[in-house]
Amino acid sequence: MATEAKVFEHPKKAFGWAARDSSGVLSPFNFSRRETGEKDVAFKVLYCGICHTDLHMMKNEWGNSIYPLVPGHELAGIVTEVGSKVEKFKVGDKVGVGYMVDSCRSCENCAEDLENYCPQQTVTCGAKYRDGSVTYGGYSDSMVADEHFVIRIPDSLPLDVAGPLLCAGVTVYSPLRHFQLDKPGMNIGVVGLGGLGHMAVKFAKAFGANVTVISTSPSKEKEAIEHLGADSFLVSRDPDQMQAAMGTLNGIIDTVSASHPILPLIGLLKSNGKLVMVGGVAKPLELPVFSLLGGRKLVAGSLIGGIKETQEMIDFAAEHNVTPDIEVVPIDYVNTAMERLEKADVKYRFVIDIGNTLKPSP
Amino acid sequence: MATEAKVFEHPKKAFGWAARDSSGVLSPFNFSRRETGEKDVAFKVLYCGICHTDLHMMKNEWGNSIYPLVPGHELAGIVTEVGSKVEKFKVGDKVGVGYMVDSCRSCENCAEDLENYCPQQTVTCGAKYRDGSVTYGGYSDSMVADEHFVIRIPDSLPLDVAGPLLCAGVTVYSPLRHFQLDKPGMNIGVVGLGGLGHMAVKFAKAFGANVTVISTSPSKEKEAIEHLGADSFLVSRDPDQMQAAMGTLNGIIDTVSASHPILPLIGLLKSNGKLVMVGGVAKPLELPVFSLLGGRKLVAGSLIGGIKETQEMIDFAAEHNVTPDIEVVPIDYVNTAMERLEKADVKYRFVIDIGNTLKPSP
Repeated sequence: MATEAKVFEHPKKAFGWAARDSSGVLSPFNFSRRETGEKDVAFKVLYCGICHTDLHMMKNEWGNSIYPLVPGHELAGIVTEVGSKVEKFKVGDKVGVGYMVDSCRSCENCAEDLENYCPQQTVTCGAKYRDGSVTYGGYSDSMVADEHFVIRIPDSLPLDVAGPLLCAGVTVYSPLRHFQLDKPGMNIGVVGLGGLGHMAVKFAKAFGANVTVISTSPSKEKEAIEHLGADSFLVSRDPDQMQAAMGTLNGIIDTVSASHPILPLIGLLKSNGKLVMVGGVAKPLELPVFSLLGGRKLVAGSLIGGIKETQEMIDFAAEHNVTPDIEVVPIDYVNTAMERLEKADVKYRFVIDIGNTLKPSP
Repeated sequence: MATEAKVFEHPKKAFGWAARDSSGVLSPFNFSRRETGEKDVAFKVLYCGICHTDLHMMKNEWGNSIYPLVPGHELAGIVTEVGSKVEKFKVGDKVGVGYMVDSCRSCENCAEDLENYCPQQTVTCGAKYRDGSVTYGGYSDSMVADEHFVIRIPDSLPLDVAGPLLCAGVTVYSPLRHFQLDKPGMNIGVVGLGGLGHMAVKFAKAFGANVTVISTSPSKEKEAIEHLGADSFLVSRDPDQMQAAMGTLNGIIDTVSASHPILPLIGLLKSNGKLVMVGGVAKPLELPVFSLLGGRKLVAGSLIGGIKETQEMIDFAAEHNVTPDIEVVPIDYVNTAMERLEKADVKYRFVIDIGNTLKPSP
C-alpha cells in the first residue's frame, strides 16, 4: 500500500523532482533537509544515476512507496558543510551516497560492515529516518547524511560516472569478491547486459577473468565482445551453444530480474560453481536440486554492498579505470529516460546532470 | 529404462543377494568378481549398511537400474588379498568401500580429490566398470576394489558401525566441513531425522555446534534432544516456533528427499547463512530469490564426499566416537528391512550382518 507522508519542515530548503502517485510521473518538488548534524556531511548534488529500482518505487510496484517520492540513490557531488565531529571529510571533497543513509549500527550485520543486510537499514529514498521523517533521494539539489554512509570519490574519477558505481557497481563487485570469483584466470559468466550486467563484465575483466556474456539476444554479441571486452558470448536459447559450454564456468553473476530458468545456468557451472543472483526476481524460480548435488554447486543472492566494501570498490574502480557507460541527461528529460529505461533502451546507465540542469522553480 | 546385464565370467566366485527386476525383491545370487589386480585390494565383507538409495535402485525408481542388481555401498570387512603394487593395505586390515569404486582419475575433480563429482565415476553397485562388467555391491560375501577407493577403518571403530559412515556419514560431514559450518559455537540446523539426519546431529555436535533439529513431527523432540544430544527442536509446521527462530542459524543440513518448502528454512538463516541440500529431491523446489538477496544467503547441494575426505571423516569419527545408531539384521531379513525403511521405521540405519548370516546356496 502506498502512503502519503506527513511533511516534516526541516530548516534547509531543498528542491528536486518527485513522483506524486503510482503514475510515476516526476515533476518539480520543494522540500527540506535537516540541519547538518555534528556527524553529518552536507553536499551539493551534481549528478545522480537512474536505477531500475527508482522506476519500481515511483510506480509503487513493490507496494511500499511513500509519496511524494524523490528517487535517486546514486548521488555524486561536492561537500558544502561538515558537522563538528566529522572526521573523514572536509568542504570541497568529492563524495557520494548510494543505496543507504542509515542502519542500526549495533546488530551483527552492522558489526561486520554489512550494513546492507541490517534489518533496520534506512534506504536513501522513500524510507523513513529514525525520527519518522522521509528520506528523499538524489534527484535533488542537495543531500545531508551521516559521514558513515558517505563515500569518498577518488580524485581521478569523474563525478558523472561515480554515481552508478555506488549502486550498480557495488552490487556486482560485492558478490565477485565475497564468493571468491575474483581470481585471475577464472571463467565468469554474466547473465543480462544492462546497468548491472555491463558493470559485472568490466569488474570481472579487471579481476583478470575470462568473461562469458549469456543473453537471450544474439544481437548483443558484437557489443559484448567488441565494446565491453567480454571474451565470449552464449545465446541462452541456443541449446547447442549451451550444451557445448556445460561445466565450464567457475561462477555466474545473474542480473536478470524477470523470471527465467536457472537449470541451464547451473549446468554451465563446474563443480563448486556458484550462481549468484543480484536481480530482484519477484516470483519463485524453479530450483532443480539434483543439479546442485552433482558438483556441489550453489545458488546465492547478494544485495548491494556494505559501506566499507563500497569504498573499496570505488577506489578499485578508479585505480583500474572501471567505469559505467553512461548517457548524461538533463533533469527535464527524466520522464522520457524512464520510458526508455523500461524498454532497456540505454547503454547502460542514465545519469542526470543535476548540477547544470536542475533549477529551482520560481 | 532398466537393462539386463551381460554376465561376465570372472575367475573369482562370489555370492550375494540380488534384485532381479523392479519388484525390488532380493534373493540369493551367484556371480563372480575379478582377479585381484596389482593395485587391487580384495576383502571379505562382514557388514553392509542399507541406504535408501539401495531401495531406489532395486525398484528402478531412477530409471537406470541394471539387473540382476546386488545393492550395498556401505561395506566393511577384512582384507584377504592385496595386489603386488598395493601400498596402503595388507592382509588382515579393517577396510571399507563406500559409494564409489572408480573414477576417471584425470579430470579436474579427480585432481582435487573430488572423485565424487567426477562425471565418469563408477558407483559401487548397478554401474559398469571400464571393461563393461557390472558393479555388484556389498550385499555379498566379498569385494575387490582399487586401493584408491578403499578406506582404512580405524582399529578402535567396530566394523558394524563403520559401513554407514562411508555413505551417510560422509554425506553430512563433507558439507559441514566444506561450507565451513564446522566452527565451535555455530548454530546448525538439521532437517529430517533419518539415517543422514541423525549423523548430521552427531557430527555437528562433535564440531562444537549448537544443534537444532527441524522436523514436521513433534514426536521426535524427545529422541532428538535426549538421545541424540541436539540442543533444541523446531516443529517446522508451527509458524510461531519458526517465526521465533528466524535469523538464528549459521547453516542448515537438509536431508529430506521429499518435496518440501525451503522458504521457511532460508528464513531461519542469519546473513551469510547456508542451506545445504543432501537429499536427492526429485522435483524442482520453489526458490524465493528475494529471501536469498536479503542476507547474502545461499542454497547448495552436496553429494557424498571424496575419498581423501572420507578417510578424514572416519578417522575423525573414530577419534570423537561419532557412530551411527544401527539395527543389525541377518541377510534373510533384508526384504523386511526394506519394507520398514520405506516407512522410515528404523533408528537409524539397518546394517546387514553379512559375515555371520550370508551362506552360499548349496
